Amino acid sequence: MEFPWKKLRKRSIDGIDDLSLAIVQDSETNEILMVAFTNEEALNRTLNTGEMHYYSTTKRRIWRKGESSGNVQKVDEIYIDCDGDAVLFRVRQRGGACHNGYKSCFYRKFDMNKGDFIIVGRRVFNPERIYKNKNKKL
Amino acid sequence: MEFPWKKLRKRSIDGIDDLSLAIVQDSETNEILMVAFTNEEALNRTLNTGEMHYYSTTKRRIWRKGESSGNVQKVDEIYIDCDGDAVLFRVRQRGGACHNGYKSCFYRKFDMNKGDFIIVGRRVFNPERIYKNKNKKL
Repeated sequence: MEFPWKKLRKRSIDGIDDLSLAIVQDSETNEILMVAFTNEEALNRTLNTGEMHYYSTTKRRIWRKGESSGNVQKVDEIYIDCDGDAVLFRVRQRGGACHNGYKSCFYRKFDMNKGDFIIVGRRVFNPERIYKNKNKKL
Repeated sequence: MEFPWKKLRKRSIDGIDDLSLAIVQDSETNEILMVAFTNEEALNRTLNTGEMHYYSTTKRRIWRKGESSGNVQKVDEIYIDCDGDAVLFRVRQRGGACHNGYKSCFYRKFDMNKGDFIIVGRRVFNPERIYKNKNKKL
């Protein structure tokens, strides 16, 4: 199956063309887990495997979520927004989404009194342990 | 109050520098309402008014959500993600977020059988009526 890529509005991100935004929400808790970028190939791989794939603007390649950590994301539902530059994926997250060990990458909240961000998320795995041994399961 | 802009990772979007991603979630229903872009000025205006402001890559200016429609967004909570390129706003949405009249901009869902998107969102206002008369309240 092919993703209807023509329906998307492509963005240039840091000079890399033909990307769209991928917003990832936990389908059980409705938490926002992460935001990343995707492209036609990543979308097709996601559709055909049922697991989230992204395009990494840092590594400049397709990236399967969980390829190092085992923390894969199984896709339940896919939505697009009105102008077509963002795709919303509702997923079941294994372990945590964040490479820092948190369930969600949005683990820091703005504190109006301090005028700064404070950590409010909960750590669900030890990133040092997970990323040192790529074959180790959670 | 100033937003700690230095903590963010700035992205270049379609050649416009110094932007970050703004992800907007309904703080009552946890629905994703919209995704747009923000910058230092939009963030400071958002903090100091309590209402969402964005940077429009189309209009190339700061944009107060609801300035035409009256469908303002009151900010409850602000989070940043691990790499600091995305800000999550949890808001109370007046009317609908989408200029097409839907509660959420993500009103189209991918149908695995059809291989295409179908409209699943509910329309909460008539965009023709709202955007024709800018002073008219919902």
